[in-house]
Amino acid sequence: MDRYDPRDGEIVNDKTHSPDATVQFIGVIRTPYITRDMCPRQGKLDGPDCAIELLPEFVPALKGIEKYEFLDILYWLHQSRRDLLQQSPKSDGITTGTFALRSPVRPNPIGVSRVRLIRQEGAKLVVKGLDCLDKTPLIDIKPERCGYTVQAPDKVADVT
Amino acid sequence: MDRYDPRDGEIVNDKTHSPDATVQFIGVIRTPYITRDMCPRQGKLDGPDCAIELLPEFVPALKGIEKYEFLDILYWLHQSRRDLLQQSPKSDGITTGTFALRSPVRPNPIGVSRVRLIRQEGAKLVVKGLDCLDKTPLIDIKPERCGYTVQAPDKVADVT
Repeated sequence: MDRYDPRDGEIVNDKTHSPDATVQFIGVIRTPYITRDMCPRQGKLDGPDCAIELLPEFVPALKGIEKYEFLDILYWLHQSRRDLLQQSPKSDGITTGTFALRSPVRPNPIGVSRVRLIRQEGAKLVVKGLDCLDKTPLIDIKPERCGYTVQAPDKVADVT
Repeated sequence: MDRYDPRDGEIVNDKTHSPDATVQFIGVIRTPYITRDMCPRQGKLDGPDCAIELLPEFVPALKGIEKYEFLDILYWLHQSRRDLLQQSPKSDGITTGTFALRSPVRPNPIGVSRVRLIRQEGAKLVVKGLDCLDKTPLIDIKPERCGYTVQAPDKVADVT
């Protein structure tokens, strides 16, 4: 997450980051992973319980969430550098493009995880399947695509 | 995408948006959908060809992308309001929480679509499966989770 020095062969983007839009943190993710080395490479749906703690103002937006077993969680990888264009995951001088990796190091450090919803406790969702650091900022919760049925009527007359 | 007035029963967040982090647009998405009414509710993997046009500086980050048939595309829903906590997709006064919908209207208007990669032409990826408006800003490309094998070695000795 917080790699500071490029490895052999890695390509750094030397252009300045251009801030085109702003993200608000809507809560925080609590996991058992308090250091980067503790984070698994990919979360497991039968892994440990983790918690998604929403800011109180967003609790009304959870209405109906209990219908879904699987959710997509979007979060901000707050410890990641953003300027690597090619990375060498094995530090062997062989590089892969950032967009061909799911590494946390990317121009917009946004992680997407599919989780299993275990239960809701007020502003808190207990879930399984996360692999991010404890205290990672939360940016979105969506029903997972496959289990989701569009609610809006067909287009033309509609204005969703 | 660009709903201006809340419908009956919808709940608006009256707190001011707090800008906690910044997103950079790394390219633009070209689709046949030039008005909101033309956008399908969900993209289809056998739908029309769409194009993902990267800014030139990010082209090196595509190295290795051709290995993947499916990609996750993240984009900024630039025409969406961000303050609806509960929405009424059918305009019938019955509301659902924003986090139990995949509506473009959300606190952080980020869309995630799974697409099929058809081919790469320099800075352009031709894909199928998008449902967003033409000229939607691009924010990330990732290999789709299921087809992705972690490249880095096991943890402990490693510092990805």
